[in-house]
Amino acid sequence: MTPKPEIKDILKEVKQFKINKDTNISSLIADLSNTGFSAKRLAIACEIYEAMINDEDCTKFFGLAGALIPAGFQGIIHDFIEAGFIDVLVTTGASLTHDIAETLGYHHLQGSVDLSEINDVKLHNEEINRIYDVFLPNNVYEGIEDFVSNLKIVDDTMPVSEFLKFLGEELPTNSNSILKICAEKNVPIFCPAFTDSGLALQLGFHHQTLNLNHFKDMLEMVNLAWDSKKAGVCIIGGGVPKNFILQSLQFCPNSANYAIQVTMDRPEPGGLSGATLQEAKSWGKVAEKAQYSTVISDATIVLPIILWYLKKSIK
Amino acid sequence: MTPKPEIKDILKEVKQFKINKDTNISSLIADLSNTGFSAKRLAIACEIYEAMINDEDCTKFFGLAGALIPAGFQGIIHDFIEAGFIDVLVTTGASLTHDIAETLGYHHLQGSVDLSEINDVKLHNEEINRIYDVFLPNNVYEGIEDFVSNLKIVDDTMPVSEFLKFLGEELPTNSNSILKICAEKNVPIFCPAFTDSGLALQLGFHHQTLNLNHFKDMLEMVNLAWDSKKAGVCIIGGGVPKNFILQSLQFCPNSANYAIQVTMDRPEPGGLSGATLQEAKSWGKVAEKAQYSTVISDATIVLPIILWYLKKSIK
Amino acid sequence: MTPKPEIKDILKEVKQFKINKDTNISSLIADLSNTGFSAKRLAIACEIYEAMINDEDCTKFFGLAGALIPAGFQGIIHDFIEAGFIDVLVTTGASLTHDIAETLGYHHLQGSVDLSEINDVKLHNEEINRIYDVFLPNNVYEGIEDFVSNLKIVDDTMPVSEFLKFLGEELPTNSNSILKICAEKNVPIFCPAFTDSGLALQLGFHHQTLNLNHFKDMLEMVNLAWDSKKAGVCIIGGGVPKNFILQSLQFCPNSANYAIQVTMDRPEPGGLSGATLQEAKSWGKVAEKAQYSTVISDATIVLPIILWYLKKSIK
Amino acid sequence: MTPKPEIKDILKEVKQFKINKDTNISSLIADLSNTGFSAKRLAIACEIYEAMINDEDCTKFFGLAGALIPAGFQGIIHDFIEAGFIDVLVTTGASLTHDIAETLGYHHLQGSVDLSEINDVKLHNEEINRIYDVFLPNNVYEGIEDFVSNLKIVDDTMPVSEFLKFLGEELPTNSNSILKICAEKNVPIFCPAFTDSGLALQLGFHHQTLNLNHFKDMLEMVNLAWDSKKAGVCIIGGGVPKNFILQSLQFCPNSANYAIQVTMDRPEPGGLSGATLQEAKSWGKVAEKAQYSTVISDATIVLPIILWYLKKSIK
Repeated sequence: MTPKPEIKDILKEVKQFKINKDTNISSLIADLSNTGFSAKRLAIACEIYEAMINDEDCTKFFGLAGALIPAGFQGIIHDFIEAGFIDVLVTTGASLTHDIAETLGYHHLQGSVDLSEINDVKLHNEEINRIYDVFLPNNVYEGIEDFVSNLKIVDDTMPVSEFLKFLGEELPTNSNSILKICAEKNVPIFCPAFTDSGLALQLGFHHQTLNLNHFKDMLEMVNLAWDSKKAGVCIIGGGVPKNFILQSLQFCPNSANYAIQVTMDRPEPGGLSGATLQEAKSWGKVAEKAQYSTVISDATIVLPIILWYLKKSIK
Repeated sequence: MTPKPEIKDILKEVKQFKINKDTNISSLIADLSNTGFSAKRLAIACEIYEAMINDEDCTKFFGLAGALIPAGFQGIIHDFIEAGFIDVLVTTGASLTHDIAETLGYHHLQGSVDLSEINDVKLHNEEINRIYDVFLPNNVYEGIEDFVSNLKIVDDTMPVSEFLKFLGEELPTNSNSILKICAEKNVPIFCPAFTDSGLALQLGFHHQTLNLNHFKDMLEMVNLAWDSKKAGVCIIGGGVPKNFILQSLQFCPNSANYAIQVTMDRPEPGGLSGATLQEAKSWGKVAEKAQYSTVISDATIVLPIILWYLKKSIK
Repeated sequence: MTPKPEIKDILKEVKQFKINKDTNISSLIADLSNTGFSAKRLAIACEIYEAMINDEDCTKFFGLAGALIPAGFQGIIHDFIEAGFIDVLVTTGASLTHDIAETLGYHHLQGSVDLSEINDVKLHNEEINRIYDVFLPNNVYEGIEDFVSNLKIVDDTMPVSEFLKFLGEELPTNSNSILKICAEKNVPIFCPAFTDSGLALQLGFHHQTLNLNHFKDMLEMVNLAWDSKKAGVCIIGGGVPKNFILQSLQFCPNSANYAIQVTMDRPEPGGLSGATLQEAKSWGKVAEKAQYSTVISDATIVLPIILWYLKKSIK
Repeated sequence: MTPKPEIKDILKEVKQFKINKDTNISSLIADLSNTGFSAKRLAIACEIYEAMINDEDCTKFFGLAGALIPAGFQGIIHDFIEAGFIDVLVTTGASLTHDIAETLGYHHLQGSVDLSEINDVKLHNEEINRIYDVFLPNNVYEGIEDFVSNLKIVDDTMPVSEFLKFLGEELPTNSNSILKICAEKNVPIFCPAFTDSGLALQLGFHHQTLNLNHFKDMLEMVNLAWDSKKAGVCIIGGGVPKNFILQSLQFCPNSANYAIQVTMDRPEPGGLSGATLQEAKSWGKVAEKAQYSTVISDATIVLPIILWYLKKSIK
């Protein structure tokens, strides 16, 4: 057993820094890595993501929960995939529903959370749905329904991931679509809670014999982990995508060597979304020597910064 | 259009109160209803739950996310069901896994979050998994595996809810088991993200032809909502159970007339777990005139208080 | 150096529990002490407070921040003092202002956070101020002004704590007043940010030569800590009261032996309000072997429970 | 009374956006202003700060709470002042203590929050204090003590703000020092809870007759607000600085026309730190027609971004 390092050998100087006209995203992140609190964690997250991209043995798992697409970050996630920064995507049924809406040419709307301006009852009467300060008119669902009802589904019992690839192929060309770029680049999408979505509701209504095989997805995900020499994971928001990736990584020979999470959830209430990445070591989901960083932040602020850093750093 | 009430007619006096030897849970909640902040919301939540139990036309939907069973609240949830306070349960695969573990006689362990005492790497070496300050030795999973591998599953394509009833029947008698009491009392359990769990992993490994029909669950849940004259909903923690209940209630003729949520999540990051119940009105999930209360709190504090209040109040 | 205990010796069984007609606050807290997450921390906080009351050598410091009095918890805090559960109170100027308002017979009002019902601009026009879901008409300040302007202040440079005792003596008899009961029971009140309050503004306007000596308060607080054989601390909400108590306890020969905090703030942003009690050990504010518990909760839920438990337990 | 605008006239399209090699901080903020959630609020905060700098009638109040200087953001705040982006600074005694430490040439240290690496008891034994993941050796306080004990204080009853100007003049030249740049640029610093700090403790020990006049500060702050044609406010972290600015702005003829806050605190527990800026309208602290934005985020991420944006935008 190697002796524990002395505290004075672990600590290093915090460096005050400046921002000026020569500041760029690389220099900012380098400066933030010498600071503390969330800024330091963000800097480390950027560096870990860069390292996992540069590690050719690493399979990059990406868990996406939360309404990022309605909020305007569909193109950001699309570009993570297009740039090859995601090998396996796990997401929610809601994200897929939102992705289809935008891909079909519908748009979410931006507004206020001031209820004295925009009242939820009035919204209901005008058939507009609210997601915090983003809004979605009901007619979007009619457009999705047209698309869904016309699908020719050749196999009612294919895995969800296979069905999602089919969806991506059926969707029109769109420079932001997540389903489309995943289909084109052969990036598998898993969605363990698929039936918890407006998309699945419409599928269920129009294709009554559908029984997509969720168990095959689960086993395929385990196989992907099993076959990964190394694994890296980036968790946005927590939820089912976080747990589904981490439960699979228990079967990865080396667990996750790189781990990032961006979330507003915290550990104290005991839910998995807020659980520390350190805790995941006890489960064998994250490796003992892994590089890891949790950034307590809204992903809408942090995700563009990470992408900006990666676009600049990765040649 | 009726005129808006004057502000002075909406506001009423905050009443300072005392606690003494005659205080009981009913008097405490009555006192808290005259206060502000979270205490008032808790009091209102108690009163709403009481009202929805006393409303014979109301179907009571209960969404459960988070590791409440490992933390020691299996008996509390069991008793909500036994007392008839829950008509439809929606939960996570993890909760079901935890419920089976405890029902088979295994126990979760209580410890510290002080990592200088209990290190996650050391835990991993000793095959003990951590959920914040609660711990689970790996051998529990071996016990679950024995149970799961011996199941005789007669229909590979039944809905998850039907399978969960079967599980409840197969489990030994236990005074705290959620699966057992649901089977006995015919309370349906839905689990849209079932394959996101240790239980499903073991099922998948041992029963390779299993393809439980998640779409039938989804449609059955819509039917339950559709057939409800009135609906009441109690959301613990958010997550998939929250969304699955609320998406179904869009099909309830009157939406939810009663709505409670207990969560540490907040609206600002835009995720559904933290979304306000008011926002759900815009979607037609919660009725315009609904009674509703969100308590920002750890459910481990609030849930026993609500049950205590209900046990005292409901004759 | 004693060997570290084995993990298996630290962990003990989580015990599922029931609530029934014989449940009382003592049995509930005893049951919660065998659970996890926030409920366990609340149970431990109750037991620590009980222990520090029963320890005759312990000086009990109580830090109070947040608008608890407007929300209806003035009587609760009053009773902590009346029962002898607080030896030294540190609070905010706002709390003192609120206490005077209620003591003079004014009342805060209870309302909704639904801005479509109660709009802040309209409130301003009607001269009603909002504190989340609690409201305060401007005329309250006129009443406070009458009281303040008529004060005969004999010494412009007395410490704030001495001035607060004088205020308590001048106030009318009131069964909930914190200033009154502190004056009667000779419990010192410290308020380091006194001039950050409506009360101080009115004092400054009407008593232009006032220069209360804040440094004497600071040194007196250090003396109180210095003279304490043992110290116990209960922090509600954080803020200046938390730091002022903890900075003084660095001068207590044994630091704090008992420490409780109830707050919604978290450690990650690096502010003192959310800092862990463990961190306070590094500063010598909390003793190495101290009993301590942080409850992440709104104090309006937790404080009545703690008082209820103490009233039942302390003979 | 003008009719309320229709919902459809308030809502506008969320625009998906891209990040590429031509992205700069101005274009990123412009893109984020078309999104939702925290990113949109950050973009609006940047634009409001820009507007208040460009408004020559606007006095810019800046409230600073939290350990930003230990974390490495002393230079950032220094540069806000140097660039003329702050007219009046209100802060905590801790921030002033930290500023003096760094200005005298001491450095805070960066480390881990992993308690299995860095134990708080061991830290105490090695005389190193912890602020989350930042560390401060005790010998820093000895350096501050040397500085403080040698001060020649000519007037024991000057206001705190005057004393802080004197401190700034006495400190050595330093390109990051907040006290120094404020003294040089004649930017007043207010610190209502001054005696709640290590700096004040050392002053009190070495200058026993000191009785800095806090009431004069309070009245001077009211005068500054009173004399402001327009006011703008940027709140970092909340606490006493937030309340002290806002209570003064009640006396500004037009209240605040611009208001920004960056905090991790939330409204639900009822404390002022987390209170909405909208609520401040009911008090007459923020103007009815004010531009305002609350960003729920760690300031260490957001403050550099705002400064970067301003440096690029302001000519």
